[in-house]
Amino acid sequence: MKMLGKTSKVLLAAVLITGLSASAMAKDKVYKWKLATTWGPTLTPFIDAPKNMAKMVKEMSDGRLIIRVDASNKHKSAFGILDMVKGGQYDMGHSASYYWKGKDINTLPFSTMPFGMTTPEQNAWFYYGGGMELMKKVYKKHKVLAFPGGSTGNQMGGWFKKEIKSVSDLKGLKMRIPGFAGEIMAKLGLTVTNIAPGELYTSLERGNIDALEWVGPGMDIKMGFHKVAPYYYTGWHEPGLDLQFLVNEKKFNKLPKDLQAILITAMKVSATDMYTQNYDMSATAWAKMKKDFPKIKVQTFPKEVMDAMKATNKKLRAEITKGKPLLKEILDSQAAYQKKVREWTKMSDFLYLKDNL
Amino acid sequence: MKMLGKTSKVLLAAVLITGLSASAMAKDKVYKWKLATTWGPTLTPFIDAPKNMAKMVKEMSDGRLIIRVDASNKHKSAFGILDMVKGGQYDMGHSASYYWKGKDINTLPFSTMPFGMTTPEQNAWFYYGGGMELMKKVYKKHKVLAFPGGSTGNQMGGWFKKEIKSVSDLKGLKMRIPGFAGEIMAKLGLTVTNIAPGELYTSLERGNIDALEWVGPGMDIKMGFHKVAPYYYTGWHEPGLDLQFLVNEKKFNKLPKDLQAILITAMKVSATDMYTQNYDMSATAWAKMKKDFPKIKVQTFPKEVMDAMKATNKKLRAEITKGKPLLKEILDSQAAYQKKVREWTKMSDFLYLKDNL
Repeated sequence: MKMLGKTSKVLLAAVLITGLSASAMAKDKVYKWKLATTWGPTLTPFIDAPKNMAKMVKEMSDGRLIIRVDASNKHKSAFGILDMVKGGQYDMGHSASYYWKGKDINTLPFSTMPFGMTTPEQNAWFYYGGGMELMKKVYKKHKVLAFPGGSTGNQMGGWFKKEIKSVSDLKGLKMRIPGFAGEIMAKLGLTVTNIAPGELYTSLERGNIDALEWVGPGMDIKMGFHKVAPYYYTGWHEPGLDLQFLVNEKKFNKLPKDLQAILITAMKVSATDMYTQNYDMSATAWAKMKKDFPKIKVQTFPKEVMDAMKATNKKLRAEITKGKPLLKEILDSQAAYQKKVREWTKMSDFLYLKDNL
Repeated sequence: MKMLGKTSKVLLAAVLITGLSASAMAKDKVYKWKLATTWGPTLTPFIDAPKNMAKMVKEMSDGRLIIRVDASNKHKSAFGILDMVKGGQYDMGHSASYYWKGKDINTLPFSTMPFGMTTPEQNAWFYYGGGMELMKKVYKKHKVLAFPGGSTGNQMGGWFKKEIKSVSDLKGLKMRIPGFAGEIMAKLGLTVTNIAPGELYTSLERGNIDALEWVGPGMDIKMGFHKVAPYYYTGWHEPGLDLQFLVNEKKFNKLPKDLQAILITAMKVSATDMYTQNYDMSATAWAKMKKDFPKIKVQTFPKEVMDAMKATNKKLRAEITKGKPLLKEILDSQAAYQKKVREWTKMSDFLYLKDNL
């Protein structure tokens, strides 16, 4: 009896202790996830967004959710991110929605549209203007959750070897410019091509292409384009390119609620950070470029060229939405929101900046 | 031996179980914090920032850090936030840095400065241009940690009963306008006053004041100013007002590392959310105001008036920094960063918007 009594007490103590920490114990489970990105291992700031996200998740979860970030040199499938997340080979991805337009045209508008919204405007559309709901609707059929993954801000229109004075100066030029903007340029008589990032500088230098667009000063400076193409045109085609985090829906649903909240918050913060980081990088790089290469000429396309781009954009938008009600719904939602929000952008930042340049 | 053996096994089991969950058990501790805000309980979106922050913290920490948000009607000390956080009556606060300029002039620039940076520019300065380090330095002597707590974006210059055509039209006007901008206006001959928010509309309607600035369409619409003062001037004085979260340093240091990370991330996300929320609110409110009150006239101050404001701003900045090396260091850091970053803002969003209004 005495010995049994002791055992009972020990058992009771064990039960009490483990009872108290039962929920805590469940939390000792460590989730190990893998994330695939489209970006190379040094492509700052794009690669920093998923890396910062994973770091924050690790800290906030005290090591309960560990996300390994694989750059494109690891998985060798830069443009297979959606498929790999959908298929479960990767739990998550980080890429740009418009890369999937060939698989599902409805993914196109969540990146950016020519003559579309700036970054603050597009954020307002995503979070308060119905954008998140539409993105959810589009990605649902892929069994993937999509979240904004960082904006580049307004992208520059590209580096040109010669000045563009009219639409006829565009005709026959060979240019690297992807996406919907590339289709507009093709209609205007350019030969539009895509070239691997590592070969861009050599192609431009040797004259295999006459022009290209990349991102903006912050990312362009390392590429060296300013050394061989002095005309730097301001943007029209990607006024606020959003990247995306993609998450396998089934895997997400298996996470405890607190880890889901941690993941969502970390994605949101790292997205915002990327925009701010690129803003600073561009400001700093531009100051340096200007100083080192005073012959760079910043230009906006002449009115005639802009008008032609706008008219072609309008025509192409009407063409691609034909018979595609969901795509039309998304583009119409963006256009209506843009019309409203641009009035405020004009009254606030635009008129302020106009007087303070 | 046999009984002892059983007891040992039970003990071993208990040790193993509790050993496994030792760190988890420490995490069952619940931290209950209190946050004091300057804002009333319905002052959207300002009050939403700390509330959203507390909600995210609760979810991410699975209830281990609970933050109660007290609006100003609860603690009755709207402008005592810094003191209450410093003294430990509250663990955290949410307010605007320039309210403490009477106690510590160095806190002034972390809100906004007339003719200063826009929100994306100021974020870049905070996170990549040395702003966070300077803010840390200033608040350290108060034993308080300060974090960006949400930007209003560009604020409107205010509602005026009469059109301002020249500097002489300003003289003798009675206007509600706080902070450094108020000092500029006083130099230009206005009688500058501060009035409790609840009395603003009546004061303007009855002619006790001739003009006032509040925030922007999103927050102004509920106040009804547009019904009694038709001239709505664009902004110059608060191009990107940042609110702040304040955290008692000692209390912060007592939190486990993972809760610290959760708190920091939640503050950052809720700050970004507030900017986006207000952007949407302003766009929506302005569309409504314009429709319901087509007689509202949006104006920018004439060049003569702007020039006088700029000259006075320059003079006053030189005056307030005299003998204040830390304040000078902060204002110089902002000015240098603004000069650099504004070039990029011009090339990117400004030139894009100029062609797409």
